[in-house]
Amino acid sequence: MELFERWESEVRGYSRAYPTVFKTASNARQVDEAGKSYLDFFGGAGVLNFGHNNPKMKEAIIDFIQSDGIPHSLDMATTTKREFMQAFVDTILKPRGMDYRMQFTGPTGTNAVEAALKLARRVTGRRRVIAFTNGFHGMTVGALAATANAYYRNAAGIPLHYVERLPFMHPLDGMDETYADPSAGYEPPAAILVEVIQAEGGVNVATKEWLQAIRQFAKDRGALFIIDDIQAGCGRTGSYFSFDGMDLDPDIITLAKGIGGFGTPLAMNLNKPEHDKHWSPGEHTGTFRGQGISFVAGKVAMDYFKDDSFMAEVRRKGEVMASRLQKMAQPGMEVRGRGMMQGIDTKDGTLAKKIVAECFRTGLLLGGCGSEGRVIKLIPPLTIEDADLNEGLDLLEKAMNAVLVPA
Amino acid sequence: MELFERWESEVRGYSRAYPTVFKTASNARQVDEAGKSYLDFFGGAGVLNFGHNNPKMKEAIIDFIQSDGIPHSLDMATTTKREFMQAFVDTILKPRGMDYRMQFTGPTGTNAVEAALKLARRVTGRRRVIAFTNGFHGMTVGALAATANAYYRNAAGIPLHYVERLPFMHPLDGMDETYADPSAGYEPPAAILVEVIQAEGGVNVATKEWLQAIRQFAKDRGALFIIDDIQAGCGRTGSYFSFDGMDLDPDIITLAKGIGGFGTPLAMNLNKPEHDKHWSPGEHTGTFRGQGISFVAGKVAMDYFKDDSFMAEVRRKGEVMASRLQKMAQPGMEVRGRGMMQGIDTKDGTLAKKIVAECFRTGLLLGGCGSEGRVIKLIPPLTIEDADLNEGLDLLEKAMNAVLVPA
Amino acid sequence: MELFERWESEVRGYSRAYPTVFKTASNARQVDEAGKSYLDFFGGAGVLNFGHNNPKMKEAIIDFIQSDGIPHSLDMATTTKREFMQAFVDTILKPRGMDYRMQFTGPTGTNAVEAALKLARRVTGRRRVIAFTNGFHGMTVGALAATANAYYRNAAGIPLHYVERLPFMHPLDGMDETYADPSAGYEPPAAILVEVIQAEGGVNVATKEWLQAIRQFAKDRGALFIIDDIQAGCGRTGSYFSFDGMDLDPDIITLAKGIGGFGTPLAMNLNKPEHDKHWSPGEHTGTFRGQGISFVAGKVAMDYFKDDSFMAEVRRKGEVMASRLQKMAQPGMEVRGRGMMQGIDTKDGTLAKKIVAECFRTGLLLGGCGSEGRVIKLIPPLTIEDADLNEGLDLLEKAMNAVLVPA
Amino acid sequence: MELFERWESEVRGYSRAYPTVFKTASNARQVDEAGKSYLDFFGGAGVLNFGHNNPKMKEAIIDFIQSDGIPHSLDMATTTKREFMQAFVDTILKPRGMDYRMQFTGPTGTNAVEAALKLARRVTGRRRVIAFTNGFHGMTVGALAATANAYYRNAAGIPLHYVERLPFMHPLDGMDETYADPSAGYEPPAAILVEVIQAEGGVNVATKEWLQAIRQFAKDRGALFIIDDIQAGCGRTGSYFSFDGMDLDPDIITLAKGIGGFGTPLAMNLNKPEHDKHWSPGEHTGTFRGQGISFVAGKVAMDYFKDDSFMAEVRRKGEVMASRLQKMAQPGMEVRGRGMMQGIDTKDGTLAKKIVAECFRTGLLLGGCGSEGRVIKLIPPLTIEDADLNEGLDLLEKAMNAVLVPA
Repeated sequence: MELFERWESEVRGYSRAYPTVFKTASNARQVDEAGKSYLDFFGGAGVLNFGHNNPKMKEAIIDFIQSDGIPHSLDMATTTKREFMQAFVDTILKPRGMDYRMQFTGPTGTNAVEAALKLARRVTGRRRVIAFTNGFHGMTVGALAATANAYYRNAAGIPLHYVERLPFMHPLDGMDETYADPSAGYEPPAAILVEVIQAEGGVNVATKEWLQAIRQFAKDRGALFIIDDIQAGCGRTGSYFSFDGMDLDPDIITLAKGIGGFGTPLAMNLNKPEHDKHWSPGEHTGTFRGQGISFVAGKVAMDYFKDDSFMAEVRRKGEVMASRLQKMAQPGMEVRGRGMMQGIDTKDGTLAKKIVAECFRTGLLLGGCGSEGRVIKLIPPLTIEDADLNEGLDLLEKAMNAVLVPA
Repeated sequence: MELFERWESEVRGYSRAYPTVFKTASNARQVDEAGKSYLDFFGGAGVLNFGHNNPKMKEAIIDFIQSDGIPHSLDMATTTKREFMQAFVDTILKPRGMDYRMQFTGPTGTNAVEAALKLARRVTGRRRVIAFTNGFHGMTVGALAATANAYYRNAAGIPLHYVERLPFMHPLDGMDETYADPSAGYEPPAAILVEVIQAEGGVNVATKEWLQAIRQFAKDRGALFIIDDIQAGCGRTGSYFSFDGMDLDPDIITLAKGIGGFGTPLAMNLNKPEHDKHWSPGEHTGTFRGQGISFVAGKVAMDYFKDDSFMAEVRRKGEVMASRLQKMAQPGMEVRGRGMMQGIDTKDGTLAKKIVAECFRTGLLLGGCGSEGRVIKLIPPLTIEDADLNEGLDLLEKAMNAVLVPA
Repeated sequence: MELFERWESEVRGYSRAYPTVFKTASNARQVDEAGKSYLDFFGGAGVLNFGHNNPKMKEAIIDFIQSDGIPHSLDMATTTKREFMQAFVDTILKPRGMDYRMQFTGPTGTNAVEAALKLARRVTGRRRVIAFTNGFHGMTVGALAATANAYYRNAAGIPLHYVERLPFMHPLDGMDETYADPSAGYEPPAAILVEVIQAEGGVNVATKEWLQAIRQFAKDRGALFIIDDIQAGCGRTGSYFSFDGMDLDPDIITLAKGIGGFGTPLAMNLNKPEHDKHWSPGEHTGTFRGQGISFVAGKVAMDYFKDDSFMAEVRRKGEVMASRLQKMAQPGMEVRGRGMMQGIDTKDGTLAKKIVAECFRTGLLLGGCGSEGRVIKLIPPLTIEDADLNEGLDLLEKAMNAVLVPA
Repeated sequence: MELFERWESEVRGYSRAYPTVFKTASNARQVDEAGKSYLDFFGGAGVLNFGHNNPKMKEAIIDFIQSDGIPHSLDMATTTKREFMQAFVDTILKPRGMDYRMQFTGPTGTNAVEAALKLARRVTGRRRVIAFTNGFHGMTVGALAATANAYYRNAAGIPLHYVERLPFMHPLDGMDETYADPSAGYEPPAAILVEVIQAEGGVNVATKEWLQAIRQFAKDRGALFIIDDIQAGCGRTGSYFSFDGMDLDPDIITLAKGIGGFGTPLAMNLNKPEHDKHWSPGEHTGTFRGQGISFVAGKVAMDYFKDDSFMAEVRRKGEVMASRLQKMAQPGMEVRGRGMMQGIDTKDGTLAKKIVAECFRTGLLLGGCGSEGRVIKLIPPLTIEDADLNEGLDLLEKAMNAVLVPA
């Protein structure tokens, strides 16, 4: 670790929480250079839905590289990109009857959000965006304005503008009339930006009813309805989109993290055609929009969604997780989540930190989220073997017991 | 191309300028699916300093993948990252006596700039940043505020705050006193953000003297001096940093594009330790900060800088480019650049577009930059063979003649 | 009127609603140059609490001018200013046990609000101020940011920053915890700015309970509690301050309009000493802060508050107004107010405009307020004779009947 | 002074510089309650162009009050207002062939500036306004953004937006092309706001040539050209407007301070009709726009401008002041000004403060301005008698000698 301490920025975080040097990884396991194997319930912060070094992706990527495929193409057309897009259209969009334009932004979630907000402001000619308490949307100034956490916001060093915050899952009673009254003082919003499940915010799950209400509010007020599905999408919750079956019809969907399959960067927004046409060519650019390796692996990932079997497995394993967590939960704790994004709200940031540290010690990687990190979030690879899943849950249970009942 | 027209966003740009579907690429050539080979003087917008599919990098990446190296690790410590960092320290920092902390941001240039501005604002407790006319620093709202071009700025849909603009290469006479006078009305700046060569801005080359003057101004006013070396760094100008030998001692250096070697995303800021210590852990995060493939290829790239031979070649080829361009230049045109970033300012955006189109037709990829795209920029891979370089220059000359002397 | 149409700005408003040229005025009557007498229920927009040309004030002002008193002194000390301040201390502050510092700002309400917001931001080191739907606080950019009405806001031509809006009289359930959670996304507010009765906003009356709740919220969150008593203060509601007896203990109170007594400008903030001491000398200035004539008349006005008899009369007349309005109100209409600020919400802006016009025709001046001007506001001089009050109410009733039951 | 120390806000300023209680005033003299008479070269911060208690104005005001004229009328039409407007049209506008609409804003300079900026933004649909180093335009947030002084700006407690600053009297070389280039990064400005003589900024006098250049720049860039003539207008410089004879044709002129004649508040913008028509009724309002006393006295003031004799006297007395100051000036000091606004730049704020204090001690009121208050500004009433003028200048000379040559 010396080199990191001497030469890496003080801003580094996870290398402090997990103070070891990792060398290899495979599906749901990371191994450090001393040979210690860790179960990975952290999942690369929601990226590694298909596991570390997914074998089919490895093979496809190596083939791609060996055949001099184009690793970096900005938004030029390539055969690799076309294959990815075709697979996404055939596997995801067409079966759902969804008509969207695919916009490849700079390959990070924050960039996807920035692009979505630009488009919403362009379409409506308005500036203010409504986002929600405890929402997380990224670190660059445009997206950070929508991110709630003060620790991140304060790092900006400048006031963050043009975002209005409403309480997540709070009833909208009277809000519609208030926003409609020009003398009430609310500017008509350009967009409502919401996560179906707030991952960083503490695994807070929105109900279908509330989401439909804010979707209707957006429609009534001429605002775009944007779902940030960066962490909860790509199969994480037991369906490809976290909002499948909710009849929400978002105007823009932001995707990143899992979309590139292998852990290499990719971000893609889905824009409704009637909004997308407001873009002029090259208005939102970015160097790394055309990532060949991510297209190749992302195309392999589509295979998981050709029928419901993989998603059914995710739902089944998600139930295992939820029921085990329910059993572990102490009085006052709360278990929340959907599919294979599950969290246990310990209501105590210090306690949660201790549990995470004890898990690391015993060979399980996971992280805290929510206020003061008090919610322990479990997002293992969707491809995790049952044995590993159970072992990880056992380790967590032991860690909780160890921390809660001091010797 | 049909699939792209039907399903990709209207924002796409390069696939319009280069209306073909590329399939493979090798060093300075891209081949489309019809088998037509193009010389690449566009270089992935400055990313592909070491060519498409650099053979040593291919080999190293395949080894890495086959051995289950960790492709995605956020800012956990990995052996791969350590090797990259060690190579960078040994090859770049130590020989120059530079002491900087390496901060891996979200793997895009715009994210690197956002992080740099955050740090400068944190260190100084100030808000305003000075940037320059025609500067380019990225597309996310924090960096976009520093970017000059109105086409990009307007796409934000919101006013861009906390950046003050000064004319690039304009003498600073009297500015120091004016900024020092508290009743003059200028806020003391948090930072001065400058490119040594404005790439997107039109291949505008700053002199050492002017850079030293603004560096001194920054020091006098307690502002951080930030060099954005995202496009001009990593060997492009004939030295690793574009400012090598200028005695500028920047407080922060932003790097991206070429740093990952292979065209996969990576971004890294170099922060002086006395500034870097103002970061708290995890204040600026991002999912894709730990890119194993980029670390592997980026480490291979370091081999090019172990002695001066590669840089000498770049300088030699840069001179070839410059002298050929000088010969092509019509009266009123201007040739500018350093090393293998060269531009010819046609002073006419429409003309430049025609030349770029004619080049594409005849098998040469390059792009326009500057006001109305009137400057044709040449940034081929630094590894380009002499034969390819000359052939590309021949094609450009012919295209200029064809366009300038209509049949 | 010709001269006004030819030479005055298109921005003029009241001369359009009352298209005649007024020549003299006395207590509750204005007379135009044709000799037509109008009952004045508009009261100079809440300024003329003591009537037009109050005889005692006239006498005092003439004495002052004849003896070469100082009409304009900025914030120099003058005997006239001292006498005003002494009277205010003795009559208003001491009997209530209130300890405040008097700050004379530029002599307009908007300037008083700007000063109050500056002080709150200075004291707390925070930026955001909470204001309420339908609130009105002035027209200059700092105060306008707190003003709700879109018609006024849009005239700014720039986004208005650093004010957050909450619904007036809406329960605060859960708000306290949300604001306390640093990861929820709300910045701690510098101040809460509220009117006890929203005058321009539509004669919306806050309850003591709600005011106490937001006062407590302010205290809990370290924010200053600012009452804008510019229109509702100075005796208008039947007590000197609109919040007398509510146990609210505001940190800052803004006063203007009625404070100068005669209709000449004056504005004065009352700042708690522990906040006031954060001012440095001359940080908030303004040319016309020291208005001799306003000090003289304002001192005379203090005589009205030496005992409760005048306020008792105001309460009695207010009840007359309220009960007459209740009788006039059609089903669906709503009567609101306190003391001699009463409004009838017709729920129909077009109807209200017709009633106002008919009143003007028949010799009664009053104005609309609230959304689309649908609330007819009655704020006659507090000194109005019963006969005039009744005559005015008769005229209003007739106008309503005339407009509601078209011939 | 006790009462002021106990009860007045800490923000008070002049009562600290002039620690006595004034009782009466007449023309160029103020007398304190102890009977000590002070020569007034401070002139109510530029308001009292026609002296304290101008006899003709006293008479007219008393007549007005006794005949129940309307002291407060918002923007209703009154006979008094009509007479003022008629006199202004006949005396000032028509002889100059000027066609402007008169807009009565809230009666303070800062409000006039806020209204002017609103109109400029409305007309152009742009946001940014160019103002100059050391400019002073007021204290409310919209105007304060244009004010340069950091002491005032910092009191805002919030960042000030939408104003860009250029160096006063600095040549514009290249600026026109830079602003015209959409990729340079400057937003097209809504307006250029300038003082012909910066009064608070240090009696800095712009040349006709520079003013014409920025006027042309404004025209070329589609920006409105706004002259803030609040302190330098109304005859102060020897002509009614400070820019008379400069062929500047401003789009908006802001007036306040001297326009009300007697020291009672009034502010008035002159808007070119083609701009003024962009206002909608009541978009910029304010309670105290219709000040009867100020209209009456302001009309009397017009008598001074019916022929050139008064202005000739001002110019003559201005020359006396300038030549006396030139004699007093020590090496390194600088005398600047025009007409009866003259300043001596001592280049030393501490020294200037001592001189001002010594003057107060010996019976002369004046104030510092410019950086650190190092410029002593002389703005006595234009109506000052020669004897008083000379006596004041003698006192200043003695004070300078006393301070410069310590016993």
